[in-house]
Amino acid sequence: MLILKVPVPRLLFIGFGNVGQKVAELFLSKNKTHPGLSGFKPQVIGIFTKTHGAVVNQAGINLEKSFNQFVKSKHFTQANPDYVNIPVIEAVQNLDYDCLIDVSGLTIEKKGEPSITYIREALKRSINVVSANKGPAAFAYKELHSLADKQSCKFLHESAVMDGAPVFNLYRNNLKGCKVTGLSGILNSTTNFILSKMEEGVAYEKALKEAQKQGFVEDNYLNDIDGWDAAVKITILVNQLMEAPITPFEVLREGIGNITIEQAQNACERGYHLKAICRAFYEKNILQTRVSVEEVPDDHIFSKVSGTGSILRIETDLMNPIMVVQENPSIQDTAYGIVSDLLSIFTQ
Amino acid sequence: MLILKVPVPRLLFIGFGNVGQKVAELFLSKNKTHPGLSGFKPQVIGIFTKTHGAVVNQAGINLEKSFNQFVKSKHFTQANPDYVNIPVIEAVQNLDYDCLIDVSGLTIEKKGEPSITYIREALKRSINVVSANKGPAAFAYKELHSLADKQSCKFLHESAVMDGAPVFNLYRNNLKGCKVTGLSGILNSTTNFILSKMEEGVAYEKALKEAQKQGFVEDNYLNDIDGWDAAVKITILVNQLMEAPITPFEVLREGIGNITIEQAQNACERGYHLKAICRAFYEKNILQTRVSVEEVPDDHIFSKVSGTGSILRIETDLMNPIMVVQENPSIQDTAYGIVSDLLSIFTQ
Repeated sequence: MLILKVPVPRLLFIGFGNVGQKVAELFLSKNKTHPGLSGFKPQVIGIFTKTHGAVVNQAGINLEKSFNQFVKSKHFTQANPDYVNIPVIEAVQNLDYDCLIDVSGLTIEKKGEPSITYIREALKRSINVVSANKGPAAFAYKELHSLADKQSCKFLHESAVMDGAPVFNLYRNNLKGCKVTGLSGILNSTTNFILSKMEEGVAYEKALKEAQKQGFVEDNYLNDIDGWDAAVKITILVNQLMEAPITPFEVLREGIGNITIEQAQNACERGYHLKAICRAFYEKNILQTRVSVEEVPDDHIFSKVSGTGSILRIETDLMNPIMVVQENPSIQDTAYGIVSDLLSIFTQ
Repeated sequence: MLILKVPVPRLLFIGFGNVGQKVAELFLSKNKTHPGLSGFKPQVIGIFTKTHGAVVNQAGINLEKSFNQFVKSKHFTQANPDYVNIPVIEAVQNLDYDCLIDVSGLTIEKKGEPSITYIREALKRSINVVSANKGPAAFAYKELHSLADKQSCKFLHESAVMDGAPVFNLYRNNLKGCKVTGLSGILNSTTNFILSKMEEGVAYEKALKEAQKQGFVEDNYLNDIDGWDAAVKITILVNQLMEAPITPFEVLREGIGNITIEQAQNACERGYHLKAICRAFYEKNILQTRVSVEEVPDDHIFSKVSGTGSILRIETDLMNPIMVVQENPSIQDTAYGIVSDLLSIFTQ
């Protein structure tokens, strides 16, 4: 039973790709399909896309109609009574809403912009922000979290790492009093998938194409292959769970571009599996962070994380390590991560 | 940074075995050792044991002295100025305290008594309860949780399943809006340890003795071997996560007593591992719960949970399955589970 803190939260979307659309679908879902969400029907007051138009209605857009129209024509058009042609920044700064939802894509070369600017502007107005975009949390973690604290609002990004599987919420809610002393895990699906395929003798290019076909590769696939996606994820985790203000540029980063089928199969024959592993640990009191390809023994739990699955191992001063595993997530898992953050903010 | 809701929580302990003593050690720990607990130093106003004496001081017992004396002589004696000889129930009903901590042992034959009675009496006075004892949550889940709700206090039991690794807190805090549709896992260390040893050719009796030596076997080892401990754990999980009011007697239960070395090794040769698996799932809309020995394929993540480790797989309507893994916990993990519940209750 969800008890709402505000009658109907009003949301402004930036981006409306696969994840944004799936969030809308969850809002529109029948109560019978997802009974736990039946008391939570927020009002969407605007959706902005980069190049596919925008809609705004301060009294709430017709989400079902707008969603159906967008799915059909891949564009908001003037046929929609709420169609607007105004810059995103103006909407962020001037509309009345309770939460900004950033489901735009990661930009490594722009270091998380323009999302960081939009999020900063919302937080300055004491408006909550939920971001599935990894960029802002990775490149401006400290600034945005400090600003949110100062303005007594929230900047949450559960779905930036391991989609809806709780990692940030787990740390915040369930590891109280613990000092996190180390992190490791498999956090990038594309490289995990390709390395598994190479063990079976499938060439890198073919495996990449299959991954792209399945839809979980970053728009710029080199973000995955070169380890940027994983570096960005371990950066956000280190910032929050280890309270160390690093950026992705400080992560020692090794991609999988140079790995050969022979290497993958040779490791296999010796009882190992090649895995792209993220690590953060202290060595002589100095924090080390890295993404690199490691040989993981066959009896290690990491070696059984296959397909698009991921795993995070958390070391603390108070417990032996615990792990969170995510089994073959789909786009709905990412969408649930956003809904989960909204429920954290707007329900008791 | 922990912000306390009450200045100094006052605690009453029932039981002071390994877990209770480890909780005391955490309270007494140096700030440097566990910096996250430095702001949390509760006052212990009483400790009752079944047959090893009791101490009470409404202004707070001297925890360090009492702990050292108990560790040395295995008994509270009249040498302790706070030594008392009164029934537990009177202490529970009459002393002034903010939380009852139940670290007494599981009683299957007594269906969770006398703990259930003590907990009921505390809750009736609107006093919070944290229990590491699985009995009360398994045999009186609904009654005690309803009573706690009615009395506006908490009945928490994080360490009853998977020690400090968050499962109940994870569900409560991080899976908001999700409907849990199925559970499975390895939740009993003793049987997991023995089955692993049998694969290596070690006889059941010898493996059991080794487990007992390592200190993780229930006082009545048949609680482990016959599947009662696992049945009790899946019962509590089903009550909370699936909101189904079952008791351990309704769980289909198969122990490991009849498993032979030959069976374990034969499975191994075929690429499988024998594991005592707990399951809860719906079959034609009817909830099925069971503990049984299954053959788990070598490439399944469950097969890599070894030693005293455990794993829980949670299926929901909103995400693909997630898992929580606990790696070789020690007694401090259980103690942290209790501290974690106290922090949930007493900090913001």
